[in-house]
Amino acid sequence: MPQPLLVTFIAGTSGAWRVERIDAVVGDSLTMAEALDVVESPNFPERANNAAWQLSGVTSNTRYTSRTEVDALVAVQQGLGRPQATRAALIPIRKSDAWWALAQDERRAILEEQSRHIAIGLDYLPGIARRLHHSRELGGPFDFLTWFEYAPEHSDAFEDLVLRLRQTPEWCYVTREVDIRLTRHPRS
Amino acid sequence: MPQPLLVTFIAGTSGAWRVERIDAVVGDSLTMAEALDVVESPNFPERANNAAWQLSGVTSNTRYTSRTEVDALVAVQQGLGRPQATRAALIPIRKSDAWWALAQDERRAILEEQSRHIAIGLDYLPGIARRLHHSRELGGPFDFLTWFEYAPEHSDAFEDLVLRLRQTPEWCYVTREVDIRLTRHPRS
Repeated sequence: MPQPLLVTFIAGTSGAWRVERIDAVVGDSLTMAEALDVVESPNFPERANNAAWQLSGVTSNTRYTSRTEVDALVAVQQGLGRPQATRAALIPIRKSDAWWALAQDERRAILEEQSRHIAIGLDYLPGIARRLHHSRELGGPFDFLTWFEYAPEHSDAFEDLVLRLRQTPEWCYVTREVDIRLTRHPRS
Repeated sequence: MPQPLLVTFIAGTSGAWRVERIDAVVGDSLTMAEALDVVESPNFPERANNAAWQLSGVTSNTRYTSRTEVDALVAVQQGLGRPQATRAALIPIRKSDAWWALAQDERRAILEEQSRHIAIGLDYLPGIARRLHHSRELGGPFDFLTWFEYAPEHSDAFEDLVLRLRQTPEWCYVTREVDIRLTRHPRS
């Protein structure tokens, strides 16, 4: 388990990823932009003058995943930055006060025993790589920023993944969700 | 469950609390100072020029506490700022990489089933009030900053509480712990 990594997603006129579309799934959307830059740094980057928006999150330890589940995930998951992974999605989510008022065992029961959130993610490994960033404690408008990367041939699988998650009991607690789709040129 | 609250503890020459002593329990200590100020603000305060040290943490949702345990705590615990609570302790703690590499169920088992961390805290309510601040994801040198407040007649109970916690299996994962004791004048 590495140290927490602070990641800032900066939408604007330049960046490694081209923004294809931004859809509001629940609640307000975010402003459309041409490009997105993903900045990993130990300190918060300055607010860029020409940024359409800027969201920061930090990686952390697992919050719900059991040892059995961690081992199953680690056995098959792959990291970010694979050359063939030219599609990405950034999905910022905010959950309700009712969610955050639940005790740990209640949140776990909804997330996994009722909604199979961890098991659903496992179904799409290793094709769809994923990194979760926590932003609730950083004071931003979202609680989580999840970043996904996949090759074009896994696009249908990715649509299936997000559709299945959005139909779960856990998603009743989502009060804002924005779905940002991105592409980049293949790396040589 | 309120929104996360960012709290910064600033040790220096002025502040609401007088620093009585600073002891290193595990690892390096912190510099002695005359006074401590506790600043609650939505943004990180500027680094004070005359500060001996400054530590920030953020309150958050429960990470291990079950509904039964939350209900037992809420039924008896009291808030900070009671007029008679003229003693305080700030105990910054860092845990090892081995701790953070554990899965959620493994950390819960060590924290409560083996160490009775939640049950031990409950034994000292309502006399000893407590607020936990998370700082691992904020990039500071500690993972947690726990703040305790109590009346002078609960001083012996407080010594008992910290002694019991330090003898638990959970504490084998503590790689740095500093114990800062404070007093203030009674409020009228």
